Amino acid sequence: MTVEERPTDQAAARPLDQLGAPQVCPHFHRAVELIGRRWSGAILYSLGEGPLRFAELRHSVPGMSDRLLSARLKELEEAGLVARSVYPGTPVRVSYKLTGKGDSLGPVIGSLGDWARRHHV
Amino acid sequence: MTVEERPTDQAAARPLDQLGAPQVCPHFHRAVELIGRRWSGAILYSLGEGPLRFAELRHSVPGMSDRLLSARLKELEEAGLVARSVYPGTPVRVSYKLTGKGDSLGPVIGSLGDWARRHHV
Repeated sequence: MTVEERPTDQAAARPLDQLGAPQVCPHFHRAVELIGRRWSGAILYSLGEGPLRFAELRHSVPGMSDRLLSARLKELEEAGLVARSVYPGTPVRVSYKLTGKGDSLGPVIGSLGDWARRHHV
Repeated sequence: MTVEERPTDQAAARPLDQLGAPQVCPHFHRAVELIGRRWSGAILYSLGEGPLRFAELRHSVPGMSDRLLSARLKELEEAGLVARSVYPGTPVRVSYKLTGKGDSLGPVIGSLGDWARRHHV
């Protein structure tokens, strides 16, 4: 616990009935929890390099089970960020890629990665 | 399910033993799951406007319980993103603000918010 004596701190000086915070933007809130859900950010990061097959995605994110990878891919498809393509043949080949909407997250993902490496997160 | 016949899809054409994906950057992975954890992104977004007291933060993120807000603030403090200041008096006043490291996330949070509003997430 840090004890500081700074009577000029605006938040501390504000009477409690004068709430100083506007409500969080609901679009931001949904977006950050969509991409921050366990493994989802990692999947989007990997697909940023180009289309990948299921086994490749599993390889790119160590520790993720097949079941969770399937569930996350389905969520990201439903959110319109990832597209799934099935190529007939034996065996059937399935690949995943970012949609235009998913790809437009690239700069956000890039800058979060830069921040994380700069701060050794 | 989308069925497309595009034999030139590099991911689908790659033999399964040639895994095309490098592993996800672990710094990015930790960062996206830190800020994407339930309520954490919203808390960082709110504090981006300036220091806030506990009740103000609770107001800014509707639906979040006191218990979860305390837990998330503690995690964000431990990650070095948020600083807690206690001002002696009756009643004691506690306020929260971003650290330099937390504040340096501002552009990432701003661009994710812009993306989310543009795409009506």
